[in-house]
Amino acid sequence: MELEFLGTGAGVPSKGRNVSSTALKMLDERNEVWLFDVGEATQHQILRTTIRPRKIAKIFITHLHGDHIFGLPGLLASRANQGGTSPLEIYGPVGIKEFVETSLRVTGSKLNYRIKYIELKTGGEVFNDKTFSVYAGKLKHRITCYGYRVVEKPRTGELLVDELKKYNIPNGPIFGQLKAGKIVKLEDGTELNGQDFIGPDKPSKVVTIISDTRYTPEIDKLSQDADVIVHESTFSNDEKQLAYNYFHSTATSAAEVAKKCNAKGLLLTHISARYTGKGSLILQKEAQKVFKNTKVVNDFDIYEVPFKI
Amino acid sequence: MELEFLGTGAGVPSKGRNVSSTALKMLDERNEVWLFDVGEATQHQILRTTIRPRKIAKIFITHLHGDHIFGLPGLLASRANQGGTSPLEIYGPVGIKEFVETSLRVTGSKLNYRIKYIELKTGGEVFNDKTFSVYAGKLKHRITCYGYRVVEKPRTGELLVDELKKYNIPNGPIFGQLKAGKIVKLEDGTELNGQDFIGPDKPSKVVTIISDTRYTPEIDKLSQDADVIVHESTFSNDEKQLAYNYFHSTATSAAEVAKKCNAKGLLLTHISARYTGKGSLILQKEAQKVFKNTKVVNDFDIYEVPFKI
Ligand SMILES: [Zn+2]
Ligand SMILES: [Zn+2]
Repeated sequence: MELEFLGTGAGVPSKGRNVSSTALKMLDERNEVWLFDVGEATQHQILRTTIRPRKIAKIFITHLHGDHIFGLPGLLASRANQGGTSPLEIYGPVGIKEFVETSLRVTGSKLNYRIKYIELKTGGEVFNDKTFSVYAGKLKHRITCYGYRVVEKPRTGELLVDELKKYNIPNGPIFGQLKAGKIVKLEDGTELNGQDFIGPDKPSKVVTIISDTRYTPEIDKLSQDADVIVHESTFSNDEKQLAYNYFHSTATSAAEVAKKCNAKGLLLTHISARYTGKGSLILQKEAQKVFKNTKVVNDFDIYEVPFKI
Repeated sequence: MELEFLGTGAGVPSKGRNVSSTALKMLDERNEVWLFDVGEATQHQILRTTIRPRKIAKIFITHLHGDHIFGLPGLLASRANQGGTSPLEIYGPVGIKEFVETSLRVTGSKLNYRIKYIELKTGGEVFNDKTFSVYAGKLKHRITCYGYRVVEKPRTGELLVDELKKYNIPNGPIFGQLKAGKIVKLEDGTELNGQDFIGPDKPSKVVTIISDTRYTPEIDKLSQDADVIVHESTFSNDEKQLAYNYFHSTATSAAEVAKKCNAKGLLLTHISARYTGKGSLILQKEAQKVFKNTKVVNDFDIYEVPFKI
């Protein structure tokens, strides 16, 4: 699982940072890419990466500000243009469907795939299948805004074949039964319980996306024990009051969340244009005083989940 | 008057060309910039030019395909963000208002300037003031599409002061009266007609914008005696049938228009991604066989009106 940052700036595009979009690449796990927000020119950014638009299976919108959604219609049209035919799910606050559907209707766009809209009226579990679940939680921005917590399901450990050697089990269905955790009776009468021969669960990962928001306790729920928290960090702690007034976070408040919630790593994004170039390292240093494993991300940065600086 | 090309590609953005947008810079004439189409990431392109978004006073949309309008909401929001307060006019086919207003409403955008929508139901004069007029004409694309003809008003010539010397006219209001074309009686009884002392009209310019279309006679009306025709040229003459099927033009058909209409110059844009890099010179050579003063334009090219290759 990897995070690739397609837009890491706040509000308006600048030469250094595009507006918001974060890709969660789950190629090994699901052969899919999920996007969190789609600011204008996200499809242009994707052109410079290895991401294939048709692999984008789910899009999670945090809130309906233009710098988080104006790239959506163009991306959807290009996904069709580039041969995407698999269905796409779009999660987000009420209104996202009207925006997308109006854009597609007015432009006479006919997509060759189906879009399913999941408009959120409240937080909670929004997706759940065999391998992953996703929870949304209401943040505290000027307009309705959701954070997301992506949770990989526990993955059953491997069958401990070495420990089974002494039983001289013939090749065949018995291994499968043991792996499924069943009780098996061998020819010599020995009973083996599969549960005793399965290794520990493989570590499953949690990724949390906290978009535009003031601090609110809901952030903690979304962030508990996360492998990576991607947290907006529009301002430094010097501008704490400004951050509060504009319903945004500081690098320090994001780091406090990561520490309190026992996260493994923190990636700061949604950086104000006032911190140009190396200026953004102020935010990183500030956060690292509270939570060491922190990075300020730049457009096109790729991070493994979890990561170590 | 200058043309600056912000997006010269067809359909979808590529690494080499962004989707459609053309700026007509009228800084000397009106201290304004007019845009023709606003594909996604036009505001990103503008970041790399000297164009100030608040100087954009009029936007002419040729048709409602996404590659010609998806940059509009973001540009409008950024224009406000960068201190634009002067009103803005948006011309285009019916539906452009719904698209823009839905985008602004859903995102809760409050602009600090007024937008006046001029939705066209037919061709004809769409704008007229002291110095310029603009005509729209219906082209032949898959959906309603307009070409535009921008006409500078004749500019009165200079007062021929040298020829007035012999009359020993005292400094003062008489010069102004003569310049205004009035009849003036001097102290010695001589009558002078201002009309006789005004030089020839200064050349006034015509710029024609022909967007996505098959050939149709309306193109000729829009293009007659133009200083510059900006003409879409998605395909080469080899792909004539493809161009026809997709309601597009070839380089050759654009050049034939320029020749027949006695234009001074032809700029080819909306280039298909199949003609990458130097490949687009095929289109230029092909057109030049018919009409010499032709260039295939690239993103960020700037041309004087008129231009000479
Ligand atoms: Zn934002
Ligand atoms: Zn087009």
